[in-house]
Amino acid sequence: MRFPPDMLGSLVYVGGLSLEAALDARSSDGARLGDELSRIGFAGPTPCPAADPPYAFLELHIEQGPVLEDEGITIGAVTRVQGISWSEFTIEGRSAHAGTTPIRLRRDPTIAMARVIEAARELALEFGDEQVCTVGRIDVVPNLVNVVPQRVTFTLDVRNTDEQVLRAAEARLFEVVDRAARSEGCTIVRTTLARFEPVEFDPTMIDLVESTARELGYSCRRMPSGAGHDAQMLARVCPTSMIFVPSVDGLSHNLAEFTTTEDLAAGANVLLHAVRSLARS
Amino acid sequence: MRFPPDMLGSLVYVGGLSLEAALDARSSDGARLGDELSRIGFAGPTPCPAADPPYAFLELHIEQGPVLEDEGITIGAVTRVQGISWSEFTIEGRSAHAGTTPIRLRRDPTIAMARVIEAARELALEFGDEQVCTVGRIDVVPNLVNVVPQRVTFTLDVRNTDEQVLRAAEARLFEVVDRAARSEGCTIVRTTLARFEPVEFDPTMIDLVESTARELGYSCRRMPSGAGHDAQMLARVCPTSMIFVPSVDGLSHNLAEFTTTEDLAAGANVLLHAVRSLARS
Repeated sequence: MRFPPDMLGSLVYVGGLSLEAALDARSSDGARLGDELSRIGFAGPTPCPAADPPYAFLELHIEQGPVLEDEGITIGAVTRVQGISWSEFTIEGRSAHAGTTPIRLRRDPTIAMARVIEAARELALEFGDEQVCTVGRIDVVPNLVNVVPQRVTFTLDVRNTDEQVLRAAEARLFEVVDRAARSEGCTIVRTTLARFEPVEFDPTMIDLVESTARELGYSCRRMPSGAGHDAQMLARVCPTSMIFVPSVDGLSHNLAEFTTTEDLAAGANVLLHAVRSLARS
Repeated sequence: MRFPPDMLGSLVYVGGLSLEAALDARSSDGARLGDELSRIGFAGPTPCPAADPPYAFLELHIEQGPVLEDEGITIGAVTRVQGISWSEFTIEGRSAHAGTTPIRLRRDPTIAMARVIEAARELALEFGDEQVCTVGRIDVVPNLVNVVPQRVTFTLDVRNTDEQVLRAAEARLFEVVDRAARSEGCTIVRTTLARFEPVEFDPTMIDLVESTARELGYSCRRMPSGAGHDAQMLARVCPTSMIFVPSVDGLSHNLAEFTTTEDLAAGANVLLHAVRSLARS
């Protein structure tokens, strides 16, 4: 993604962000979105937000996860999109010599981080399959074998399809971070990097994806999306769902991302026939 | 340190490394030690190892730790140097999307690392004051907020003044790493970065430092060194000890490293009078 936030185009299209604010979005290399659209000839005249919302919206996508492949199922009828909570924590301790500093005189931020990583895993197991937690980014300063770190910065990605449960997960993990940092004599700064509430898709549209898949002879299961998609923006203005096909090894945003030709054809067929049904309705 | 291993000069002087191997040592920028010594005119004629060892060896150094300052003591009479075990672990899991990959299908190397960080702290507390453990360097790949890491590389610094206890600490922590990685379905590679056995200093020399400090009216305590020093090499060939003075906030290898003028003078006085005693003996 060059211009933040994620799904900026569909967000503007449904009126969630003003056109002016979007055109002023800056990329990390300093470019302005409005200038770049003009430069490449893509600054079109369509009004935003759309005056006339679509009749319905269906998005075909690879799952970007391993569930369909793991269960040997061809089509996912997407019921909702997980809410996403991204936080960054900076825990500051005191840099010290790893050989000469007794444990009782240390303020080691990695100890607090380790407790958070373990607590996040425990919480995910306790809250069940709809709950995931990930510590994906860790940066240590000064990052030397023989120095107790001065500071560690790490991210916590927490997702759930239920907003109340997501809030409970956030509250518990934020409390773990506070307690762990305090017990090690460290200070802590928390920054919210992103926060999206869960989105429910339209029951009729979900039924349509599922029944179309079954009519075409494909195995199908209902499932939430763990990743963000334009469909979650369109769901604000029209009946919406998504069609998932398997991702080999669950890989995406990766050179090894792959979906078999048969699965791609199956997804395209479900999209074609579902849209035909909508056109007739 | 430009040319590995640590304390290379004193190691060659006492015969622990051949002169030829030392002159062939390469720095990270590719330079060869022998060439650099010739270039700056420091390639002298003194034979190594030394034909005639010193009568005794005393090294004056800042503590590089917080103990003397914490206890309000001026002089440390150094009894021994901790053994040092440096390991690097690379735990390889499977990179995966943080939103779409259920916990049961993850192989997350940070989970294993977190267990090791906590186990290292627990072991240090259990083994007592002479035991320290530090995870100082952590590198995560790909290090992104929304990706379960593929791989984490981290170091473990374990030190103890007793070789048997150090071996027990290593054995237990290596077992924790193996078990934690295995239970997460991750593979593991361990590399020894450095390993020094503890070194005992000479009882007569330790007594001399202590009695000299007391005669001069300085408070004094016996203590081990947590850092490596040339004295540990010289201890192989002659009676050896060290004199420590306080480090403010325990800092060293740091721009804020500081020892007061009074403490520096006290250390120099102990060195002077101890050497005078040796010269008379």
